[in-house]
Amino acid sequence: MVRQPERNLSKVSDVFDVRLKAAATAVQAHFDKILPTRPALPVIKGMSYAVGGGKRLRAFLVLESARLHSVDPQQAIWPAAAIEAMHAYSLVHDDLPCMDDDDLRRGLPTLHVRWNEATAVLVGDALQSLAFECVTHPECGSAEIRVELARSLAIASGVQGMVLGQALDIAAETAELPLSLDEITALQVNKTGALIQWSCEAGAIMAMADNRALRQFAQALGLAFQIADDILDVEGDASKAGKRVGKDDAAGKATFVSHLGLDGAKKRARELVQAACDALDGYGSEAQTLREAARFVLSRDS
Amino acid sequence: MVRQPERNLSKVSDVFDVRLKAAATAVQAHFDKILPTRPALPVIKGMSYAVGGGKRLRAFLVLESARLHSVDPQQAIWPAAAIEAMHAYSLVHDDLPCMDDDDLRRGLPTLHVRWNEATAVLVGDALQSLAFECVTHPECGSAEIRVELARSLAIASGVQGMVLGQALDIAAETAELPLSLDEITALQVNKTGALIQWSCEAGAIMAMADNRALRQFAQALGLAFQIADDILDVEGDASKAGKRVGKDDAAGKATFVSHLGLDGAKKRARELVQAACDALDGYGSEAQTLREAARFVLSRDS
Repeated sequence: MVRQPERNLSKVSDVFDVRLKAAATAVQAHFDKILPTRPALPVIKGMSYAVGGGKRLRAFLVLESARLHSVDPQQAIWPAAAIEAMHAYSLVHDDLPCMDDDDLRRGLPTLHVRWNEATAVLVGDALQSLAFECVTHPECGSAEIRVELARSLAIASGVQGMVLGQALDIAAETAELPLSLDEITALQVNKTGALIQWSCEAGAIMAMADNRALRQFAQALGLAFQIADDILDVEGDASKAGKRVGKDDAAGKATFVSHLGLDGAKKRARELVQAACDALDGYGSEAQTLREAARFVLSRDS
Repeated sequence: MVRQPERNLSKVSDVFDVRLKAAATAVQAHFDKILPTRPALPVIKGMSYAVGGGKRLRAFLVLESARLHSVDPQQAIWPAAAIEAMHAYSLVHDDLPCMDDDDLRRGLPTLHVRWNEATAVLVGDALQSLAFECVTHPECGSAEIRVELARSLAIASGVQGMVLGQALDIAAETAELPLSLDEITALQVNKTGALIQWSCEAGAIMAMADNRALRQFAQALGLAFQIADDILDVEGDASKAGKRVGKDDAAGKATFVSHLGLDGAKKRARELVQAACDALDGYGSEAQTLREAARFVLSRDS
């Protein structure tokens, strides 16, 4: 039975909050179980440091899309951990002095500040390997499911996905003209969109079900997420965000806000959240928590 | 029928030479087919640059171990390309200023010298993803085979394998005492041994065959390879090696040569090559080219 979802975009429910926190707790417990603690090397301490904290939105998206397809949470925790490891690696490498040169992340010193650059490079490298180790773990499902998870994750994270987005971002810094709105969109679809899309589709992949609705949801969600990030960079509070704000403006960087204005960016983000919610109509009320995730990206302060 | 292999360690045959070159040509043609060429970004040019050249010993080992198990070369070319992508990523990151700070590799400027550090980090990251994209490619075999290749590759390259070796190497630089022979062995088993071992086992994995003999071969080969590397650093010619030599001694680094002496190191390498050849007795003369690969690591000048 297809029920019409609630249309209120302004509020996030307690159920969402509880599930988001539960996902964060579950994925942290999983990391505590699978991450090495010996030998006592910076790279090993650094891996735990890098995956600690954060909202765990991507893990939550994996677990919720899995729940939507009645996938056992004991299976789904593996791709949930995988995507958080992959995301953490990208943050550690993006924060390097030769990339964004950030010294604060999730309210703590970035990894190369806490240890050193060599350790940060290695931690990122090891976390990428770990992501593939997680999705290929026997507990994660049949060989068909695991290989499909691994293959789609490799494509999402590589030079057709996340790395391409990061490379476009770097190229934009030295470009003669600021990026157009279409170019920013293409950049972000890859840079942040690819992993978010994978997170949302993982549940369907695990159930070997049609993933088109979740893909549509994810594409709108990913873009809304990035617009919210641009808004946060203008309006945000560094102490809440746990990272520097006002960076884009200081760098004279073209963003959704510089193109659309603050109000225009907020309007566009709301439209995208609505489109994301609509994409899940076929799932009825079962997808309510995922719809709330889309609303959450508008309300977040970090 | 088990035939006794030839025991002469001193000579490498024309067949080996032809097959090594054929493997290099095949894997390069495969990269030319699968690597993106657009958009015209440094990261995309850098990926081709990083996987170009080199002996392609790891690809050769994959193709030979596959041949030994009658695996179709059209399938085996995927893990062959995967291991070369993984190896190339490790070189690009190891050469970074924050790691070994090398400016010459395979006779050409290292990637961060040719482009910049950010591009080198991204190229390495993208090549690791590409490695997993290759082993999960549908042409590579059944889902069971691909997931086993991906899983073993993730373990070999991550913090229980190659990254651990690199981290131990970095830790050794600031350690109070030089590494013992056992510690150097443990370091190298991971740093260079893990990927060499995976290369040798890939054919058995693709045939779902017993991989114990190939593992034994690979472990001896990997260590012989590293001892030869240490000898090359002392006796080698930079113009042939295509990279700086004399680095270990200049850095006061403990190596197989500093522990065993030049003659002792050569003797140990010869013993290991013999052990590697012996491990393949069960394969008879079919494994002759792999035995020659073991001899080759003693005779190489780059």
